[in-house]
Amino acid sequence: MSGLFITLEGGEGAGKTTIANAVIDKLSTLGIETLYTREPGGIKIAEKIREVILDRDHTEMDCRTEALLYAAARRQHLVEKVKPAMDEGRIVLCDRFVDSSIVYQGYARGIGMDEVREINQFAIEGFMPDLTIFFDIKPEIGLARIAANDSREVNRLDLEGLAFHELVYEGYKKQAKMNPERIVSVDATKSVEALTDEVCALILSKLNK
Amino acid sequence: MSGLFITLEGGEGAGKTTIANAVIDKLSTLGIETLYTREPGGIKIAEKIREVILDRDHTEMDCRTEALLYAAARRQHLVEKVKPAMDEGRIVLCDRFVDSSIVYQGYARGIGMDEVREINQFAIEGFMPDLTIFFDIKPEIGLARIAANDSREVNRLDLEGLAFHELVYEGYKKQAKMNPERIVSVDATKSVEALTDEVCALILSKLNK
Repeated sequence: MSGLFITLEGGEGAGKTTIANAVIDKLSTLGIETLYTREPGGIKIAEKIREVILDRDHTEMDCRTEALLYAAARRQHLVEKVKPAMDEGRIVLCDRFVDSSIVYQGYARGIGMDEVREINQFAIEGFMPDLTIFFDIKPEIGLARIAANDSREVNRLDLEGLAFHELVYEGYKKQAKMNPERIVSVDATKSVEALTDEVCALILSKLNK
Repeated sequence: MSGLFITLEGGEGAGKTTIANAVIDKLSTLGIETLYTREPGGIKIAEKIREVILDRDHTEMDCRTEALLYAAARRQHLVEKVKPAMDEGRIVLCDRFVDSSIVYQGYARGIGMDEVREINQFAIEGFMPDLTIFFDIKPEIGLARIAANDSREVNRLDLEGLAFHELVYEGYKKQAKMNPERIVSVDATKSVEALTDEVCALILSKLNK
């Protein structure tokens, strides 16, 4: 029993959460239980670190400090939540992981993809996802979805300008191109039903390997 | 005006703080003002990060999480306090810096010196000290000093076993040997007066370059 580690990636409004919920339900009807998580994921130390990152008083936060804090929270979440579940042979579906840091901080914020990858390698010690699903959607469509959805709380990143989200999109495209053996892109403009089927099929194909 | 960045390193009970105070006083009588600091150094974000590190409830803290948090606090302290002072042409005397992480976490905790050096390079972007003074003292002597000094608060590291402090000492020796152009060792068993004179002379020789 070695478990399966799957991460979901994409820009704002790509529909990751909606599809994740539908995928978990569908897999459950097939008798396959999945652990769905997202950093900090209820892990005390990771939650505390996230509080430091998100504190609105912390306007002086340097982007490298932020990247190190994300890597620290990731490490603790991985050690306390993801690894133990994997050791039990479970399927772990994680909303955002190292690719988010590499794309948002490394590429869009301009720190450098390689540099951000390195501090994340320190954090995860080679514990990479078996499969990463990139929800491919142009930022103007993703952002329009968020604007039309009253129930979704607008976060700090939603408020960035379109130029930033275009950089995020470009970063994901680069990252997917550089990691074709791990990252599979799905067309996130498809219907929830079609996407759910496609993501389930990808997970099942990994399970059956 | 480019300033001068000097760091003090050494194990517990090496006398860094005592000598730092005496050095600052002596330099002051020569008309040389020095900024003395130690992470988190009153920098709000760095203080918050340090609280997460030191929280006694955080018994699950992984050593890599801790190393990333130290690097994050270092980054913020550097950006908000050390660099601005350096830009004003000041002399900054900093109690502990990257060498402490490389030695305590990289070597003594066993993460690996190179790995800890790398995440610290991310944090400091090549902003290394002009001079590092290593207070060379055998751990059994340093620890005996602490035990004899009622006024000094015993911290978490003081309570580690002698074997840990011996690893720290070994790590510092290695680090000093690998960086002879930057790290100068002083015999920390000397008198306060002799050490103060020696450290002042080292700083003045850098100033006059």
